[in-house]
Amino acid sequence: MFDPMCPSSVLPFRIGDKWTGMVVRCLEQGPRRFGELRGPLRGVTSKVLSETLRAMERDGLIRRIAYPENPPRVEYDLTPLGRSLLPLLDAARAWSREHLPELLRARQAYDAD
Amino acid sequence: MFDPMCPSSVLPFRIGDKWTGMVVRCLEQGPRRFGELRGPLRGVTSKVLSETLRAMERDGLIRRIAYPENPPRVEYDLTPLGRSLLPLLDAARAWSREHLPELLRARQAYDAD
Repeated sequence: MFDPMCPSSVLPFRIGDKWTGMVVRCLEQGPRRFGELRGPLRGVTSKVLSETLRAMERDGLIRRIAYPENPPRVEYDLTPLGRSLLPLLDAARAWSREHLPELLRARQAYDAD
Repeated sequence: MFDPMCPSSVLPFRIGDKWTGMVVRCLEQGPRRFGELRGPLRGVTSKVLSETLRAMERDGLIRRIAYPENPPRVEYDLTPLGRSLLPLLDAARAWSREHLPELLRARQAYDAD
């Protein structure tokens, strides 16, 4: 049912990563520098953000653009592949807006038992 | 941008969990027992599956039904809330079928550099 190479088993792992979806969302309006990502992604450490960006670059979801300036300037930009995730993130957000209160109520009731 | 209580930051974490989506998919056709879940979820340990099922029950995504039989029989079933995740999983699978080859090619090219 869930072959290791089956899309249904690869995908939840990849875009399900806690920060990947948020980085895609942060880059929706255009390229950003590392520091411009760290601000909105509250709670992420530099180490974890670096690893996330490297993994996303490896997967072709973002491009790293280094400008030959002094001091050097580096920006991250969504690729068309990364941008193709936006409708999925929209759907996840819509689900959450509709159903999250119910989920949190269930959690409270469970913990109260 | 990403408040800890903001739906967009809660959801990717929750349904992004590697096993949660697969358990939802496994229960799509009806209730199953623990052992009937372990089979198709190749690679999951009993401990991790137990934890996943408990977290999903806590979040109101599944119900645990214990039949007063001898020996005792326990089944897991999707709640309407859990079932509402299916369209999202369908969308994720469709994305993956369309784009996964491109992602894997990007990964290979990156590693070859």
